[in-house]
Amino acid sequence: MDYYSKEISKLIEELSSLPGIGAKTAQRLAFHILNMPVEQAQSLSHAIVNAREKVRYCKSCFTLTDEELCPICKDQGRDHKVIMVVENTRDLVAYEKTGKYEGVYHVLHGAISPMLGIGPNDIRLKELMVRLEQDVDEVIIATNSSLEGETTAMYISKLIKPTGIKVTRIASGVPVGGDLEYIDEVTLLRALEGRTEL
Amino acid sequence: MDYYSKEISKLIEELSSLPGIGAKTAQRLAFHILNMPVEQAQSLSHAIVNAREKVRYCKSCFTLTDEELCPICKDQGRDHKVIMVVENTRDLVAYEKTGKYEGVYHVLHGAISPMLGIGPNDIRLKELMVRLEQDVDEVIIATNSSLEGETTAMYISKLIKPTGIKVTRIASGVPVGGDLEYIDEVTLLRALEGRTEL
Repeated sequence: MDYYSKEISKLIEELSSLPGIGAKTAQRLAFHILNMPVEQAQSLSHAIVNAREKVRYCKSCFTLTDEELCPICKDQGRDHKVIMVVENTRDLVAYEKTGKYEGVYHVLHGAISPMLGIGPNDIRLKELMVRLEQDVDEVIIATNSSLEGETTAMYISKLIKPTGIKVTRIASGVPVGGDLEYIDEVTLLRALEGRTEL
Repeated sequence: MDYYSKEISKLIEELSSLPGIGAKTAQRLAFHILNMPVEQAQSLSHAIVNAREKVRYCKSCFTLTDEELCPICKDQGRDHKVIMVVENTRDLVAYEKTGKYEGVYHVLHGAISPMLGIGPNDIRLKELMVRLEQDVDEVIIATNSSLEGETTAMYISKLIKPTGIKVTRIASGVPVGGDLEYIDEVTLLRALEGRTEL
């Protein structure tokens, strides 16, 4: 890295610290940035610091937002009695993109993982339980279909059951358009177990 | 993109404008940045704008540097009578990493490409010719072994030949450690043509 001037080295170093950006990609990105119009580099630079400084957690659902309460939690047209629990804001956005979900969300910011030493107190679970003291009809657990996601789903359902609130889990099965031939056995079995009458 | 607060959308948009960064990667990077300590986000942001604003072209060889004259052109220990012509600063760095080249460089910032509408006047060729008015023994053309690189090499050699300065081209052939079985025929033929006596 001594082959570059110190500003370039520093930029490559900073870019390499991003996930999935190796040394070669960082170098390529750095040279792209060096060839940008100055205003565009400033705009990228500003977007980074501005997003990081302005964005905070919604005080109700803990998604990332720039206001005290996110637009979804503020929206009185949505059903505040149905809460979908997701692992992170990206998952929330994935469901929002379907345009069909009318309830609200709760973002855990992680999943329970004994392997990674992430316990129930490391995710926004207590905050969910506090929300359930309000009038809630249903909690839909939409954590990932991974070991951690399933563990988290089980843990949450056990925690909520005593309150009498309905707890559901999104279905796992064959993805739409998926070719059975290429789908793993666990998923195939899940799809079979979860079969519905036509 | 309306699913995110405007700062997040803006950050994703800026990141997506980088080469090789699609929508999904931009989203992943954005959330990584949002979860960084504020100082780290500031540091990344600063590195971008600082590099872009401070870095300029060396007035002699046109590599990217932060001074009027780059460290290589300033180095009196190097042989200023041998100039290696490369397409860009990354290629210069690749040769510097070998630690064996003692001459200086000339960075074209591109290669002649009729396909992309890049002509001889769009790269730093005139500047190379001006340098050749000084006392130069050899010009080593180290443009890529692509159609554009070869075209550029041919063009430059024709331009320089009348001056009487020696013009050479780096060898193309089988890469060290390369398995002949997997090497394309054009490279194999080049390697054959370029064979040297042992």
